[in-house]
Amino acid sequence: MASSLADYTRQRDELISLDRALRADHKREPLSPVEALADKVIRDVRAAEASSIWSAEYPSIPHPFPGMEFLTGRSIIVQTKLFEILSKMPKGALLHAHLDATVNVPVLFDLALKQPAIHVRSPTVLNASNLKSTLPQFEALPQHTTTNVVSLTDAKYEPDTWVPMKQAREIFDPQLGGPEGFDRWVTGALTIDPSEAYGTHNTVTKIWQKFLSTFRVSNPIIRYVPIFKEYVREFLLSSIADGISYVEPRVNFVYKSIIAADGTHLPHRELLLIFDQVLNEIKAEMKRQGREDQFIGARIIYSTVRFITPEELNWYLEDCIALKKEFPHLIAAFDLVGDENVLHPLIYYAEPLLRFREMQKEAGVDEIPFIFHAGETLGDGTEADNNLYDAILLGTKRIGHGFSLIKHPKLIEICKEREITLEVCPISNEVLRLTSSMHMHPLPSLLNRGVHVALCSDDPAAFGSMGLTFDFFQVLAASEVTGIIQLGEMAKDSIKYSTLEPSEKDRALQSWNKRWEEFLRYAVSVGEEFLKAKN
Amino acid sequence: MASSLADYTRQRDELISLDRALRADHKREPLSPVEALADKVIRDVRAAEASSIWSAEYPSIPHPFPGMEFLTGRSIIVQTKLFEILSKMPKGALLHAHLDATVNVPVLFDLALKQPAIHVRSPTVLNASNLKSTLPQFEALPQHTTTNVVSLTDAKYEPDTWVPMKQAREIFDPQLGGPEGFDRWVTGALTIDPSEAYGTHNTVTKIWQKFLSTFRVSNPIIRYVPIFKEYVREFLLSSIADGISYVEPRVNFVYKSIIAADGTHLPHRELLLIFDQVLNEIKAEMKRQGREDQFIGARIIYSTVRFITPEELNWYLEDCIALKKEFPHLIAAFDLVGDENVLHPLIYYAEPLLRFREMQKEAGVDEIPFIFHAGETLGDGTEADNNLYDAILLGTKRIGHGFSLIKHPKLIEICKEREITLEVCPISNEVLRLTSSMHMHPLPSLLNRGVHVALCSDDPAAFGSMGLTFDFFQVLAASEVTGIIQLGEMAKDSIKYSTLEPSEKDRALQSWNKRWEEFLRYAVSVGEEFLKAKN
Repeated sequence: MASSLADYTRQRDELISLDRALRADHKREPLSPVEALADKVIRDVRAAEASSIWSAEYPSIPHPFPGMEFLTGRSIIVQTKLFEILSKMPKGALLHAHLDATVNVPVLFDLALKQPAIHVRSPTVLNASNLKSTLPQFEALPQHTTTNVVSLTDAKYEPDTWVPMKQAREIFDPQLGGPEGFDRWVTGALTIDPSEAYGTHNTVTKIWQKFLSTFRVSNPIIRYVPIFKEYVREFLLSSIADGISYVEPRVNFVYKSIIAADGTHLPHRELLLIFDQVLNEIKAEMKRQGREDQFIGARIIYSTVRFITPEELNWYLEDCIALKKEFPHLIAAFDLVGDENVLHPLIYYAEPLLRFREMQKEAGVDEIPFIFHAGETLGDGTEADNNLYDAILLGTKRIGHGFSLIKHPKLIEICKEREITLEVCPISNEVLRLTSSMHMHPLPSLLNRGVHVALCSDDPAAFGSMGLTFDFFQVLAASEVTGIIQLGEMAKDSIKYSTLEPSEKDRALQSWNKRWEEFLRYAVSVGEEFLKAKN
Repeated sequence: MASSLADYTRQRDELISLDRALRADHKREPLSPVEALADKVIRDVRAAEASSIWSAEYPSIPHPFPGMEFLTGRSIIVQTKLFEILSKMPKGALLHAHLDATVNVPVLFDLALKQPAIHVRSPTVLNASNLKSTLPQFEALPQHTTTNVVSLTDAKYEPDTWVPMKQAREIFDPQLGGPEGFDRWVTGALTIDPSEAYGTHNTVTKIWQKFLSTFRVSNPIIRYVPIFKEYVREFLLSSIADGISYVEPRVNFVYKSIIAADGTHLPHRELLLIFDQVLNEIKAEMKRQGREDQFIGARIIYSTVRFITPEELNWYLEDCIALKKEFPHLIAAFDLVGDENVLHPLIYYAEPLLRFREMQKEAGVDEIPFIFHAGETLGDGTEADNNLYDAILLGTKRIGHGFSLIKHPKLIEICKEREITLEVCPISNEVLRLTSSMHMHPLPSLLNRGVHVALCSDDPAAFGSMGLTFDFFQVLAASEVTGIIQLGEMAKDSIKYSTLEPSEKDRALQSWNKRWEEFLRYAVSVGEEFLKAKN
């Protein structure tokens, strides 16, 4: 034991350094002066707000604290200086987001409303008591004609008959709020609200039921080609606006077609043609604006759902290879999605998955890596937890979530050796009840072990957490160890561990570095001004 | 990658083995036939109950699941066969429990009621609207005489005047439930109920306020010598009944006296004399009954609270040494207790703590190790989290809680090297909101890294989790990896890492082994019968 206090303090500093030696923000080259200053200023802003805005009383928020339940804390978050600063941060790449939940709900709603083909129906006449529990069903029906339009709220409404969305909205019963009541009904069906996540559906099992229902409602709207085009455009532009310079969305191909403007069913390649077209338009726009360095592009992780059989999986693997042949620049990887706690485990698909590489070689396409969801669970030794073994044995390039990875010392070792990056989705994990607040999230434990992590938004439309700023905020707010430097390292890793070609990666990293310097100067100036005004 | 499914399956089994290689239930000698059978039978019972009693509907429990919030799930737990089996398990030693919260509340209540000296008062006249939020205050006042007894619920009651407890109960307003209403009021003040832990006080900060108030209410009762004697007796006997064969309670010496039957204040040594006397009586009783192997004894971890100054700490260190001199067999270790998130960190006391060993040498007493609370927090890099560095640097023999240890790779390594055992308190951590259910608890991550763990109950009276059966249950119910063998290893470690002398440890381990064999045979027989009846 130490013989003097000075001796003790020195031993203590050494021990803390040793304990944090594997962190990305400790392993890297020394901080530049502006980095060091920005790190300090942002820590000071965080501390100042912890004892001011987060310590105030709010009538509707029983216990505000930094890193608290997102859906309840959101209204405070957006008022903070920390959020304002982070919204300007260059975020790198978005590596884990399901395309179906990446456009802000009011925007999607407006896109739908503008299309006369979009119809809505209800399995029952809507009234005050069943409104909240009844889901709207949408469908693009360009050929459909309605002669006698009856409101979904009218006693004469015949359940399950289609009504044009615009009219359904206009004639929605004023007792149920009229058009705004309709908006609330649809919006409620497309998003998770705090009373659900933290009240009625406060377990992983229950909240997933609500969560999945949002996709059932939105899916028929998004898959309608005239909307899909605008949808992709909005996803890319809003990502760019949030400081994201490259995206790798998972696109769910389990439905074998999309719906054309005339109502005909089109195969998957048409979806990719549209995606490619929108992508090129945006790249051209960015170039015209002299902002081409702010957007490197987008590639798709081909996904299907874990409720199919291994035989059915073969069709998707072949489909994926065929699309890779036609769109080698767009198809980035392959994944199987869905609630791991209830659907089939990866090992159920081991045989076809083990053949996939061989199939690619035979088809003569470039390698399509696996980027599997795995360990998005609270289970200890359950099938969902064990998916981590299979994801790694099957050679996954990254791991989607890996929430339960912290339990597995050997797998963490392997992830580090093979540079298997974790796509960590902080707000998703919290809203979907894997963690009660950011303070129970395993992220700090993973960062302290040197696991590579990219922060991701997963399904921001369902959570109301558009972009990546909210996720970065929650991580920064809930720790005294993690600062802006660690966030920067994660942003860099998101580019480094994307599926971009080496030359594109270099370009993306160079551009990120330039923007990072600008951001740090901005953060110092805004932060210092804020702190001065506080004192 | 594997070339065949058989090859793949083999690789997978190997990887899982490697990943679990550090677990106590993997490192040990091979299972005996009865261990292997009991392990299987208990896993089968657990699985059968997960899909029966835990999948049923309960009007008052919105989402039952094994490992759920204890205060809500308790009524289901006690109906399970798994609980019945575990209640017979030899638990080893109880290494972390605060003496002030180790006796079941109804028992303490009855002990108080029997003493005419126990008085109660209220800061206000009690009525239906203030009852829940008003704390009773108790005091042992043997010399006090009350001439005109008025009910605490009577408009004529003068706030803060003492009323004998028995009479206060008898004349409690029938509108507020009469005597039973009084009982509910006092019991509510001594325990945490689900509406508090999971509703009104659903954060660490808020639930600690309620938690600490239970001690303020019970403390004056427990410190009254005629009660204290019976209290210690009840603690020891109920522990023995739960299969605990040795206890190392933390006794809070921050109050410098206890209250004699005649109302005089007695110094700490009187408390130890009583403790010793009761202990010897029980040992003698056990011997008479031929059960001496079921109870090895008890030793005390001298504790004071982290709100004192370093100067004040010197008094307690000296007091501890003086008691060690007089009762070398009773004083086991030294600790500082209280809410780490708000009280002083260990480093605040570094100077006196660094001198403690020298003070012991000068006094010529046997070594008094530190056994510090540390890391009982959700903080990442906060003072409470950093207490782990100090606990280890100051040479702690075990760590109380170490909830945040999982974040610290280097500290985990040191804990393993130096065999610093963690006193993990599953139910306490959950009720005090460090984890929302057992599924978010870091325990599996620690076990998978080979950290030595003893399961402990902390403050069972406040949580209604008397004994250790409930804590063992919660750990077993929430994992598919941990089985009865791992529980057995933790029970053995609790003896191995106690402060018992080597010869006593051997005797305790031998006796535990014998009882373990008997328990396994019992578990197999009861479990198999249960499973047969189910099919």
